[in-house]
Amino acid sequence: MRIGAVEAGGTKIICAVVNEKGEILERGRIDTLTPDETMPEIIRFFRGKEIEALGVACFGPIDLNRESETYGYILKTTKLEWIDHDFLTPLKKEFGIPVGFDTDVNGSVLGEVTFGSSRGMKDVVYITIGTGVGMGVYTGGVLLHGAAHPEAGHIRLTRHPKDDYAGCCKYHGSCIEGLASGSAMRGRWKKRGEELSDNDEAWELEAFYLAQTVCDLTYTYAPQRIIMGGGIMHKDGLISMVKKETLRQNDGYSVLISADTIDDYLVLPSLKDDQGILGAAVLGLEALKEMG
Amino acid sequence: MRIGAVEAGGTKIICAVVNEKGEILERGRIDTLTPDETMPEIIRFFRGKEIEALGVACFGPIDLNRESETYGYILKTTKLEWIDHDFLTPLKKEFGIPVGFDTDVNGSVLGEVTFGSSRGMKDVVYITIGTGVGMGVYTGGVLLHGAAHPEAGHIRLTRHPKDDYAGCCKYHGSCIEGLASGSAMRGRWKKRGEELSDNDEAWELEAFYLAQTVCDLTYTYAPQRIIMGGGIMHKDGLISMVKKETLRQNDGYSVLISADTIDDYLVLPSLKDDQGILGAAVLGLEALKEMG
Repeated sequence: MRIGAVEAGGTKIICAVVNEKGEILERGRIDTLTPDETMPEIIRFFRGKEIEALGVACFGPIDLNRESETYGYILKTTKLEWIDHDFLTPLKKEFGIPVGFDTDVNGSVLGEVTFGSSRGMKDVVYITIGTGVGMGVYTGGVLLHGAAHPEAGHIRLTRHPKDDYAGCCKYHGSCIEGLASGSAMRGRWKKRGEELSDNDEAWELEAFYLAQTVCDLTYTYAPQRIIMGGGIMHKDGLISMVKKETLRQNDGYSVLISADTIDDYLVLPSLKDDQGILGAAVLGLEALKEMG
Repeated sequence: MRIGAVEAGGTKIICAVVNEKGEILERGRIDTLTPDETMPEIIRFFRGKEIEALGVACFGPIDLNRESETYGYILKTTKLEWIDHDFLTPLKKEFGIPVGFDTDVNGSVLGEVTFGSSRGMKDVVYITIGTGVGMGVYTGGVLLHGAAHPEAGHIRLTRHPKDDYAGCCKYHGSCIEGLASGSAMRGRWKKRGEELSDNDEAWELEAFYLAQTVCDLTYTYAPQRIIMGGGIMHKDGLISMVKKETLRQNDGYSVLISADTIDDYLVLPSLKDDQGILGAAVLGLEALKEMG
């Protein structure tokens, strides 16, 4: 079986052909420029590749309401040229095959529960901490959508007593994205995460906010596991600091978080940054199944 | 059809016989004393009532994992005599009929989406602000359980600049329950909510924290509607203050919250405090269906 997969991010778009075992048979990379430049490139990649379905895991916010007239559109994004762009219809028209469509983070969680170390789990949250903070929620064996899609990176946080940085989220200031994203680190310390490796205070604050995030996600979704991905999590030892701080902040409250469970509860992605593209393929597989 | 329904709270237990239209045919009230005193009373109420199934909406935390050996037990509650009490087995043994079991707040949301003004909606959050803060989440047409059950009343909040009250939650201090519950109001002002009717600052703070809660729930679950119940919400005009403050705090971020949508998005319960007992009946109906 040959499934097309598109992982569309703000700076690059990965296209791949994937089989039902989650093996990547072919892959390409396209820069995210304007829709007029980029969409034809995506289409060109898949032409002649004999794919049976296509799955798209896309940066957001996007319209996922199937009854909406703008289903499959990108909404109010910071990438201004993509606002109100219909991502789905050109692909459907070109290939005439089932096309699945969801957020990039929902793609990542789907990749991990289908082909990764969380295979078979039914309640998993995927959080990505990069330039922004995104969250994909898999609950009871399905993706959580609600009436729009979750934007849980915008939950507000309790501030660390030592931290007087106002926060970089233009809507909320001190939400998770505002205090703990890569942009927040840069705003607070005037340096990129990579350049802060010897700044213990910076990582202490980061672990404090990420642990608070883990507790909030535990109390809201009660998952079996939380997967922490994104550029910031590449920092050596950060996951251990977050685990320790999570145990301290939870203080025995949720039974899901304990010294015995924490190493299995809080993990890094298992698919070497292919969780998103593999999840996109799962969206394609599911679209195919839906068509019967 | 005659379904037995039990709404078990920390101070009282309502028992009722309900039909499939959500009409209450008979009802009784039992004080919540010790399990030895109270469980026989519940059983006595239903004896000879010819019920076909029973549903229990119970104060928590409770074990909802059907594969657990303690499924149907009450866990670490502040009502010490009820800790590790098996609520389910005695009822099953006595009546030999299907018994559904879930949290009190999940009962309330189920009552509202089945028989109330949110009938037919698939994504609804019910929050109760009383002595504590509880949350029931209905998403994609099913109750959200996860690996335990949500305790979203324990999300931490950003503090109001005028508020120096430490918070009453012994685990988290400044979580929703710690800053916005009835207990928090009493702790902060040394008076009960009813006695604070002319204290504008008290209600301004309360609206500030509840609006933040509404935003957090919107960003996590993206529901079609949030229902706000519990004793504190009986305060005249509070819901209007919360709506206004929610619009201010969201500041156009989530498309679900706008001046056009807010009156339909944020509502009081519609079932005159019968949402819990009617939801318990739905749990019974569902248990019956599951048995085929």
